[in-house]
Amino acid sequence: MKKTTLFFLMVTAFLHSQSKDELMLKDIYKFSLTKVQCYAWLDDLSNKIGARPSGSPGAEKGVAYTKKQLETLGIDKVYLQEVMVPKWVRGEKETAYILDNKTKIAVPICALGGSVATSQKGLNAEVIEVHSIEEVKQLGVAVKGKIVFYNRPMEPENIEAFKSYGNCVDQRFYGAKEAALQGAVGTIVRSMNLRLDDFPHTGAQSYGDLPKANYIPTAAISTNGAELLSKKLKENSHLQFFMKLSCKQYDDVLSYNVIGEITGTEHPEKIMVVGGHLDSWDLADGAQDDGAGCVQAMGVAEIFKKLNYKPKNTIRVVLFMNEEFGGKGGKKYEELSKLNQENHIFALESDSGGFSPRGFSLECDEANFNKVNSWVKLFEPYLIHSFVKGHAGSDITPLTSSKIVKAGLKPDSQRYFDYHHAANDKFDSVNKRELELGAATMASFIYLFDQYGID
Amino acid sequence: MKKTTLFFLMVTAFLHSQSKDELMLKDIYKFSLTKVQCYAWLDDLSNKIGARPSGSPGAEKGVAYTKKQLETLGIDKVYLQEVMVPKWVRGEKETAYILDNKTKIAVPICALGGSVATSQKGLNAEVIEVHSIEEVKQLGVAVKGKIVFYNRPMEPENIEAFKSYGNCVDQRFYGAKEAALQGAVGTIVRSMNLRLDDFPHTGAQSYGDLPKANYIPTAAISTNGAELLSKKLKENSHLQFFMKLSCKQYDDVLSYNVIGEITGTEHPEKIMVVGGHLDSWDLADGAQDDGAGCVQAMGVAEIFKKLNYKPKNTIRVVLFMNEEFGGKGGKKYEELSKLNQENHIFALESDSGGFSPRGFSLECDEANFNKVNSWVKLFEPYLIHSFVKGHAGSDITPLTSSKIVKAGLKPDSQRYFDYHHAANDKFDSVNKRELELGAATMASFIYLFDQYGID
Repeated sequence: MKKTTLFFLMVTAFLHSQSKDELMLKDIYKFSLTKVQCYAWLDDLSNKIGARPSGSPGAEKGVAYTKKQLETLGIDKVYLQEVMVPKWVRGEKETAYILDNKTKIAVPICALGGSVATSQKGLNAEVIEVHSIEEVKQLGVAVKGKIVFYNRPMEPENIEAFKSYGNCVDQRFYGAKEAALQGAVGTIVRSMNLRLDDFPHTGAQSYGDLPKANYIPTAAISTNGAELLSKKLKENSHLQFFMKLSCKQYDDVLSYNVIGEITGTEHPEKIMVVGGHLDSWDLADGAQDDGAGCVQAMGVAEIFKKLNYKPKNTIRVVLFMNEEFGGKGGKKYEELSKLNQENHIFALESDSGGFSPRGFSLECDEANFNKVNSWVKLFEPYLIHSFVKGHAGSDITPLTSSKIVKAGLKPDSQRYFDYHHAANDKFDSVNKRELELGAATMASFIYLFDQYGID
Repeated sequence: MKKTTLFFLMVTAFLHSQSKDELMLKDIYKFSLTKVQCYAWLDDLSNKIGARPSGSPGAEKGVAYTKKQLETLGIDKVYLQEVMVPKWVRGEKETAYILDNKTKIAVPICALGGSVATSQKGLNAEVIEVHSIEEVKQLGVAVKGKIVFYNRPMEPENIEAFKSYGNCVDQRFYGAKEAALQGAVGTIVRSMNLRLDDFPHTGAQSYGDLPKANYIPTAAISTNGAELLSKKLKENSHLQFFMKLSCKQYDDVLSYNVIGEITGTEHPEKIMVVGGHLDSWDLADGAQDDGAGCVQAMGVAEIFKKLNYKPKNTIRVVLFMNEEFGGKGGKKYEELSKLNQENHIFALESDSGGFSPRGFSLECDEANFNKVNSWVKLFEPYLIHSFVKGHAGSDITPLTSSKIVKAGLKPDSQRYFDYHHAANDKFDSVNKRELELGAATMASFIYLFDQYGID
């Protein structure tokens, strides 16, 4: 064959292939913005079922509901995967006061996940404000008998709100343990929230290897509450703080990951996971965190099925249980995957809220990263521009197949921490179109990896 | 000089210049996310002043407030520009019912801007549902004596919500005129809203060259109301619709554009405008439309002043009056600019809401478009990716300098029509960080054009 002919054929093949992918993405986005059921599913999950903390009746209702909805899609397999999960219950709504001489000012707090309760009478002590775990170590005995108040705010100047969260969340996660080691009697942590408001934001914390007897109660305070407490402390460093927590840790209980599959036509043994986590915190409905990710993952299956797309590889929707407080679902999934000698080539998680999608955060090698970058033009009409290396998702972190591309959907992050783990993480905080655009973006990305494989 | 030396110097100069711009953008974004006053200004405009329809006391308070705030920035000039504007007043809250045999169902409506009132008893007539102005023309006498119900929804499948608005808004703007020409007694228009909810969305409409005696009352109905009415019409095509509007058009009144300037150090005669519009609709506070754009434009002046940036060209903040209902402020601005033989090289408007910025929509020639594209990398760290040709802004449309680049800030558009011209366009719909990122993006773009000029 002449070189020019070969070149002509290559160009034709390229244009044809481009055009096929362009058309498929067009179909995916159109279906998503007009027909996908994500928003209706999220309405049910949020408003009919509500909060789904692991081990709760809500979580079990979520399992039954999503299994049933996946079954109605007519995909090849739908099943549950057993997993033992922690069960921690908040109990009575918390109360807290700043006690400044004779004035008593109520402030909004909530126990952090895994915290022990205070005594029934509550805890009353002086407060010491700090801005880092390091500072507590340095203070040493100076914190003894006191409530340590971690008040380092999320940095407003980062463009990505998750960066600010990452730079701040150690106070919440490890703060109680370190304060307990130095003899503190409790901790309160400024909520991980970039906004000043009255919502306390819960979240996981860990006492690590402390003996149980040394556990101290730990709670989050709203950002407005933190500002007020800090101001009052400047006026009177000996003021007292009162808090009462009634939370309790129970034995682990049986729960489930929910799984639905479309079997691959060419490589049924190669698995591409798409998922979110079904559990939420207990203060609201977990619409953003992570009802949105769950219904988007289910939406990917619906999109492929309804567009009659037959994937080459097996597409597996996984709704993980217990991301928020132990990550047992993700760990169990990997354990069983190893046991069954499964071959995962790709995993995509959506766990950053149902906001306008902006791109993907990727854990992969250079070859696959370059491949993704060759698709950038395909995504431009959908305003998807950001393909970067970075953390993909907590539930897919345990997956250890030798060759695997991991991705996290990157939605716009500015509003996420207004709702994260707080009582306003409700259905009305999610915009239908933004949610649907996320599902379309996920389906498009999976379609391209399914077509072209991983390197 | 040797060619290689020249090349080396050019590369050095390029790298130096890149790095200078990178640093400036970094400073701009950091200042915006930590110190700019936009959000506090918007709080005042929304919650202390409220609705600012042109010719209203709210609009005049808005003029006084923003003038004063610009003065506190210590910029070179702050002044008002007189402009006569239309004054239309809604009067009593509208009432409307679907009258189906003996049942009477209240539905949420609001008069469109410029509509005449119904009689004091209200208007009662049969309804005919249509989906376009063309259809009304074809129906002709069949609409006589009836209320024409325009019910073509915004298309959900477009990625840019403004495209759907553009494809739909003719029903609102020209619908009443055409229906009146065919003998209809009133019109109701499905609200320009991509969401199903209970908010009617007002907006400008025009009777065009119709004799005043032929004007008919026209109102918007909420999307849920439109769905219900359409359903009921399918069951009973002879049902009656009742509506009562008390609105009234008054004589034009004196108002103002608000202007603040930083005089250029090298080319004081070359003017770069940055603006939004100070008037709003009357149903809410106009926080998104266009309080956000106003405070962002003011924010640009604050950013430059506080960062001690001395622009080469004159930066002129213009808060236009009466964009919503006649565009008199923009027209007057251009008229005076011509009269004073001013030379505008650049104009940027923010009038698409205070959501996360995504890029700019540009009216310019190829040379300047290429220049903008050479800055793409500078904006990547701020997740600003979309530089496209398209409509820049209504208030800057009249500007006719022979060489001018016009730009419109492009925020994420998915949520905009949830609030546009409706009673929920309030302060709490605007996120502080998204607003501030918009101001930073505008300041950065102006900085680059100020540094490198237009071609």
